[in-house]
Amino acid sequence: MEVKLAKSYGFCFGVKRAIEIAEQHKNSATMGPLIHNKKEISRLKNDFNVDLYEDISDVKHNDTVIIRTHGITKNDLQTLKKHDAKVINATCPFVTTPQQIVKNMSKENYSIIIFGDEEHPEVKGVKSYGEDVFVVKDITELKNINPKFDKIATVAQTTKQKDHYSEIINALMIKYKEVRVFNTICDATFENQAAADELSKEVDIMIVIGGKNSSNTKQLFYICEKNTKTYHIEDEKELDKSWFDNKNSCGVTAGASTPDWIIQNVCKAIENI
Amino acid sequence: MEVKLAKSYGFCFGVKRAIEIAEQHKNSATMGPLIHNKKEISRLKNDFNVDLYEDISDVKHNDTVIIRTHGITKNDLQTLKKHDAKVINATCPFVTTPQQIVKNMSKENYSIIIFGDEEHPEVKGVKSYGEDVFVVKDITELKNINPKFDKIATVAQTTKQKDHYSEIINALMIKYKEVRVFNTICDATFENQAAADELSKEVDIMIVIGGKNSSNTKQLFYICEKNTKTYHIEDEKELDKSWFDNKNSCGVTAGASTPDWIIQNVCKAIENI
Repeated sequence: MEVKLAKSYGFCFGVKRAIEIAEQHKNSATMGPLIHNKKEISRLKNDFNVDLYEDISDVKHNDTVIIRTHGITKNDLQTLKKHDAKVINATCPFVTTPQQIVKNMSKENYSIIIFGDEEHPEVKGVKSYGEDVFVVKDITELKNINPKFDKIATVAQTTKQKDHYSEIINALMIKYKEVRVFNTICDATFENQAAADELSKEVDIMIVIGGKNSSNTKQLFYICEKNTKTYHIEDEKELDKSWFDNKNSCGVTAGASTPDWIIQNVCKAIENI
Repeated sequence: MEVKLAKSYGFCFGVKRAIEIAEQHKNSATMGPLIHNKKEISRLKNDFNVDLYEDISDVKHNDTVIIRTHGITKNDLQTLKKHDAKVINATCPFVTTPQQIVKNMSKENYSIIIFGDEEHPEVKGVKSYGEDVFVVKDITELKNINPKFDKIATVAQTTKQKDHYSEIINALMIKYKEVRVFNTICDATFENQAAADELSKEVDIMIVIGGKNSSNTKQLFYICEKNTKTYHIEDEKELDKSWFDNKNSCGVTAGASTPDWIIQNVCKAIENI
C-alpha cells in the first residue's frame, strides 16, 4: 500500500522543538506537562529521565528545569533563578514574540490588550511582561477595560482565530487614535486542516491518528470524511486489513498532540499491508 | 419664532480655522480654492483681498500664499519656499497628523498604506511625506500593492468611513506581522448628521441650509425629514412665511460648505417671522 503523509500534520513546530530540547536534557524536569499526551510524557520519562514539576515550589537548588512551549510568567522565571535552577527555555518562539512585544510596547507607553483566555498559561506568561495589560476573550469584554494610555498595542493568544481577533481590532480602532496590531496567531492548526483537506482529495483511503477525545483530531476526521473513506485511530493496533481491500493509495494525518513515533508506526504498518 | 441651531452644523473645525487665517492675511492668495463655496471665496476676495492661485507656477516672489485645509505635497511646499513666498499654513490639523505619521513611520521603516482616493489633494499631500507609500480606495486594490517592508502603518483620508477602513485593516492584519493603525478619520460629517437627527426630533419645523447639489446637505435633509417637516434652502431669500404658521420652534442646520454668515442671515430672518 502506498502511504502519503499530509504536508502538515501532528505536532506543531514549537512542540517538536520542545521535545528535542527535552531529549537533549536527560535527568531534567519540565515545569508543567510538556504536551497534552501522556504516552509522550511517559516516553520522555522512561527514555530520557525527563520528570515533571507540577508546581514551582517543587523545584530544588541546581535542578535543571525545562520551560514548556506556553512559557511562564516573569515572576516564575525570577523564582526559578533565585532557586539557582538551571533554566532551559523551550518556550515556543511564537510565544516568545508576544512576550517581547508586550515588554517593548509597555516601555513605549502603550496600553496592551491581549486577545485570549485569562487562565491560559500562555496568556498568563505574556501578560506578565507588561504594565498596563488587559486580557479580553471576546469583543463584549472590551467594555470592562480602562486603559491608561490612548495608544493601544494588541497581541493574540497563538491558538486564537483571526476573524475573532479582527472583530476586536475593529472595535478598538474606532475608539483609539492608534492601534498597533501584532498578528501573533499561529497557523499550525489551520495548516494541518488545509493539508488534510488537500491530501484526502487525492487518495483512496485516509487514516487520521489522534486521541478519540481530541477535538482538533475529530476536526481533521470530519474534513477528510467529506473527500474519501476515512478512519480515526489512536495507534497502529486499531488498523483493519480489510479497510485497504481494492485501495491503491492511503493518506495519513494526525492531530496536534500525536507524537511522530506513533505516526511512523502507523505508516509502517500500512505499508506492510 | 424660536430658533434652535443644531449642536454641530456647517463648516468643520478645519475650514472655520482656515477662513479665520485667510481673514487675518489681507492681500494674500490661497493655493487652490479654500473651500467649495463660491460665495465665500468672493467674500474673502471682496472684503479681504484674498486671491486665488490655480497653479503653483502663478506664485511670484514674496507673495503671501495660504495653504488650504487639504494641505499640499512636500515638493510643492519646497517650490513655494524656493520662490521666497511667505507661506501661511492653513492645513487642517487633522490633515497635518497623517502627514506627520507618514513621515515618522517611513523613518521607522514601515511601508505605508493610505485608505483614500489617489487623486484627492489631501491624499496627494499625505502620500508625499513618505517613501514606500500606497493608496488604496477599497479592499480590492490591496492585491495591486507590493510593500517593501513586512511592517505596515496605515492612515485614512479624513473624510472616509470607518467601517470601510476596518475592512482594509482586517485584510492587512492576516497578511502582515504588524499593522499599525492610525485612526485619522474625522468625525465632523457624522457629528453634523447626529446633531441634525437629535434636533429635528425636538422642533416643529427644520430648515437645512446648503447648496442644492451638495450631497452632504441632501443627506441632512433626508435625516431631518424623517422626524419633522423639513425644508432645504440655499439662503434666507427662499424662506416662505407660511411654512411657520402654527409652529413654535424651528431647528436650523447646514451642510459642510455653508458659511456661517449665510446661516446667521437665515436665523435672523426666521426670528423676525
